[in-house]
Amino acid sequence: MSAENIRVILVHTTHPGNIGGVARAMKNMGLSRLILVEPREYPAPEARWRAASAGDVLDAAEVVSSVEEAIRGAQFVVGTSARERRIPWPVQDARRCGERIQGHASRGEEVAIIFGREDRGLLNEELELCNLHCHIPSHESYPSLNLAMAVQILCYEVRMAGLGGVDDAAEDDDWDTPFAPAEDMARFYLHLEETLVDIGFLDPKAPRQLMRRLKRLYNRVRLDEMELNILRGILSETQKHQRPRDP
Amino acid sequence: MSAENIRVILVHTTHPGNIGGVARAMKNMGLSRLILVEPREYPAPEARWRAASAGDVLDAAEVVSSVEEAIRGAQFVVGTSARERRIPWPVQDARRCGERIQGHASRGEEVAIIFGREDRGLLNEELELCNLHCHIPSHESYPSLNLAMAVQILCYEVRMAGLGGVDDAAEDDDWDTPFAPAEDMARFYLHLEETLVDIGFLDPKAPRQLMRRLKRLYNRVRLDEMELNILRGILSETQKHQRPRDP
Repeated sequence: MSAENIRVILVHTTHPGNIGGVARAMKNMGLSRLILVEPREYPAPEARWRAASAGDVLDAAEVVSSVEEAIRGAQFVVGTSARERRIPWPVQDARRCGERIQGHASRGEEVAIIFGREDRGLLNEELELCNLHCHIPSHESYPSLNLAMAVQILCYEVRMAGLGGVDDAAEDDDWDTPFAPAEDMARFYLHLEETLVDIGFLDPKAPRQLMRRLKRLYNRVRLDEMELNILRGILSETQKHQRPRDP
Repeated sequence: MSAENIRVILVHTTHPGNIGGVARAMKNMGLSRLILVEPREYPAPEARWRAASAGDVLDAAEVVSSVEEAIRGAQFVVGTSARERRIPWPVQDARRCGERIQGHASRGEEVAIIFGREDRGLLNEELELCNLHCHIPSHESYPSLNLAMAVQILCYEVRMAGLGGVDDAAEDDDWDTPFAPAEDMARFYLHLEETLVDIGFLDPKAPRQLMRRLKRLYNRVRLDEMELNILRGILSETQKHQRPRDP
């Protein structure tokens, strides 16, 4: 198990009881790093009560104001998604996600697992921050799991993968360069978008799905730091040569 | 999926919220048959609230007064157990239990999954009613899962086994005779115990672990109806030939 570099992130949680339930579910499965993005009501007695003997996980939880802040430093980001999205994203079921999370974490990479709001899940712009989307194959008659239950299942799969010695980080198994952390990717996307506007390829008034598709592309491939530097270099050069032409 | 012949049984549940959480967890995974053995507080608004859109599972739940009544008709009985027991019982992890439950259910057998009290789990005499004990491999720092979470994990594993087409009912794959239901096994054990007392093998004042070991033996092997009839016949004959010798 590589618990210390796996963080669980809850985004805009409404019910404090769910936060407590999540803390307990995590500790039951050997995880301890919880980050809360703008919870509606926290701290709260209900959270404490539902956490039972996992009060230490609550005590150590960080409260931050954005998903970007929560995933800072993360090199592999998994987002949980119940709904179908307009643009398909790489998606795997909880079992396979558990194996991949465990595989990356056991290599010493920083891993983040993001869970959305009780009612609406993660927004499209949050899902776009992820390398992989996780799907829990619930029944069509009532597919919507309680938040803490979803966390329980995924943490359970992470633990099962750790116990089984599964080590399955897919195609980037023996990489020689670290993968870029989330905040570098975010800067890259801004730079990319800016450049695309600069060169007139992207109309900010009618952006359509362009940036979303590009993010999916780069998040799917996971850029290493060297690759990212190269791409940033290209963008800078592009901008440099573009600007003089503006009136 | 063979949901209709899988029943989830909760024994002496203390918190009604957990009953609601269980109903939702079941419906999320395509199960619907819930039996409550002497819940402390039920019906209750907290159960209704936590069930969310699984109110129909609560509406259809049966309330009974004993575990024996709850498992009536069941041909494969799984009990969930966190603690170590004095006498080891056949035990498998939740994944393997999910596969076996699905395997038996898809053959049309009646399956029962029993969950114990929030604080103490199942008692020894309840665990002895089971063919198999289920273990969720939680972390040693805090092994005790919330009741509804444990139900969620096992129902999830049952569903995953169903979706994966896993069909693994172990060694009794192609049986030609139905397996004996739980109430026939209970009668058999009473008959056996009575006979053992009759013949002076079992001292009711100092029973030790004898009956427990015998139950483990027969529950591990799962008797089919024909075998059970044969054993019952042997016991009857034994008693018949014993009684005339009594003074």
